[in-house]
Amino acid sequence: MTAESRDRTTSRPTMADIAAEAHVSVKTVSRVVNHEPGVRPDTAERVRGVIERIGFRRGDSGSTLRHGRTFTIGLVVEDLADPFYSQISAAVEREARIHRYLLVTASAEGSPTRERSVLKGLVARRVDGLVVVPAGETPVADPTVISSRTPVVYLDRPVLSETPVDTVLSDNLGGIRSAVEHLVAHGHRRIGFLGDSPDVWTARQRREGFITTLRDLRLPGTPLVAMGPHTPETVRTALTRWTSGADPVTAVITGNTRVTIPALTSLHHWATQLSYVAYDDFELSDVVEPAVTVVHQDPAAMGQKAAQQLFARLLGDEGPAQVVVLPTRLIVRASGVPRHPGRDVRTVSAS
Amino acid sequence: MTAESRDRTTSRPTMADIAAEAHVSVKTVSRVVNHEPGVRPDTAERVRGVIERIGFRRGDSGSTLRHGRTFTIGLVVEDLADPFYSQISAAVEREARIHRYLLVTASAEGSPTRERSVLKGLVARRVDGLVVVPAGETPVADPTVISSRTPVVYLDRPVLSETPVDTVLSDNLGGIRSAVEHLVAHGHRRIGFLGDSPDVWTARQRREGFITTLRDLRLPGTPLVAMGPHTPETVRTALTRWTSGADPVTAVITGNTRVTIPALTSLHHWATQLSYVAYDDFELSDVVEPAVTVVHQDPAAMGQKAAQQLFARLLGDEGPAQVVVLPTRLIVRASGVPRHPGRDVRTVSAS
Repeated sequence: MTAESRDRTTSRPTMADIAAEAHVSVKTVSRVVNHEPGVRPDTAERVRGVIERIGFRRGDSGSTLRHGRTFTIGLVVEDLADPFYSQISAAVEREARIHRYLLVTASAEGSPTRERSVLKGLVARRVDGLVVVPAGETPVADPTVISSRTPVVYLDRPVLSETPVDTVLSDNLGGIRSAVEHLVAHGHRRIGFLGDSPDVWTARQRREGFITTLRDLRLPGTPLVAMGPHTPETVRTALTRWTSGADPVTAVITGNTRVTIPALTSLHHWATQLSYVAYDDFELSDVVEPAVTVVHQDPAAMGQKAAQQLFARLLGDEGPAQVVVLPTRLIVRASGVPRHPGRDVRTVSAS
Repeated sequence: MTAESRDRTTSRPTMADIAAEAHVSVKTVSRVVNHEPGVRPDTAERVRGVIERIGFRRGDSGSTLRHGRTFTIGLVVEDLADPFYSQISAAVEREARIHRYLLVTASAEGSPTRERSVLKGLVARRVDGLVVVPAGETPVADPTVISSRTPVVYLDRPVLSETPVDTVLSDNLGGIRSAVEHLVAHGHRRIGFLGDSPDVWTARQRREGFITTLRDLRLPGTPLVAMGPHTPETVRTALTRWTSGADPVTAVITGNTRVTIPALTSLHHWATQLSYVAYDDFELSDVVEPAVTVVHQDPAAMGQKAAQQLFARLLGDEGPAQVVVLPTRLIVRASGVPRHPGRDVRTVSAS
């Protein structure tokens, strides 16, 4: 969907309308909408006032019941109960509330079929826009959404699409690289990767990032990878294999929280042998012992960025589709440091 | 709002309509709607078919655009990112999906003002029903919701209301009692209670349950209570006070996860002195050491029960308002067992 086609089919105010009304440049409106610096507070306030007024007047009039706005946006994620998605959901809802929008949320539970059915329902109820974490091994831009011309921002995973689409991703390759480099800097040479199901795009990205980084750093041996979904048993099997033999691993990377949680108990059992870094921060990561070094991607920032991009479109931003890749951050605690058999773990964690 | 008044203002199919169409008794429809046993699978299937057909036919016709259904329900909680609420949210959404409804979610962030504004928005967009975790020190049934005659089920906290309203609660008093009794059974006599903010109804209930149980069990001394909101610092201050002096506490109860998380680090520091039980299970409660004994209330079951009650109303259940109190369950792990100074915590946790 091009911005132009979207504009022809609706009577949404464009940035130019708002700029004219607020006596500012289109660039200024764009800055306010995108929460960029460089706008005086009173000017920003005036622009927001105009946005609110124009938006609501159109939405409340009878003629817009069919072609106008419903002041709701939809969010489709895999599982609302999962902390990663609930943080995204809270952030998108907060952004929606700022714009006086309501948020409709739905779990697709990783099923492309369920996702299609949910999206169909959302489009039928004429949500003004969508943020979608696409399901499926090879996510594809949904035809129902495309033909409805509903603005959509894809989040966390890109979709295959004939035309470019707005997408917000996290830097999976960079995140994994920072984890491997941290372990190598602490003397580890033989590292295993426990990934989530290869059906998940981010899991495949992180596996690729792992293998690429080992090669770039010229680490010896075949990369050790065990993809999930994981249970405590599958983790134990992989760790048993990797720690026996002539060239045992000394460190492990868990590919996301769904792997980290079942892995934690097993990692405790190997505590005198194995260091590790977890992808994704989690509650209590600094209370378990040793405190866990993590690659932190910020789900709240991801949700906020996607919602901001969607509202920019709703407010008339007609620029080309954007793919934003948000950086990750390595939070160094204690679990990546080499274990010393016989020494107390607490002592190690203080080093 | 009475069921009668609701029925006059809409053309919603009642249980009697569905019963007639499916050639079964109203009681059978009620059982299917409420997921109660005692209905043959093929009969249940037929009833669900009728419900779906009648519901959708009416909703899709033009004349119901104003007075008919939108096939959306609203959920208002304190914070969608909080695991307690995200589990509720996922359960309500799952139940909505079974009925082919969409779920609109909103965080009131503990503010009665924000709650009113959110409810106003939901009612203005004509959601068919609402599940609300009410905010505020003394939650009051919302006048906007009452005058709109939108069916509502209150969850987790009751509201003040002239007429009875559907409410789903957790057994706070019983939950706290099970925690105290567990600690007393392990020889503890001096127990402290770290509660959440007294603005929160459930926090006040649990404080009351704590004091009542101590009295019932004839434990000596004044009850030791420190209400929040808590930070690691406020926890440390309370624990320092309670563990010094002639009659030190030997065990602590944390009143919910918002207290447990900041308390965990401090409790580690007092690990050789203090046992504890946490209200609310949390991820990794069995990985931290010692593994944490918890009072488990089931947020998913709470959300499901509230949504089921709401859909029963939407399907024509005109019975009197119900107050359902769901039981809690004590999950015994290791943290309630008395500490033995000098002995390793792991050894204790195995006893």
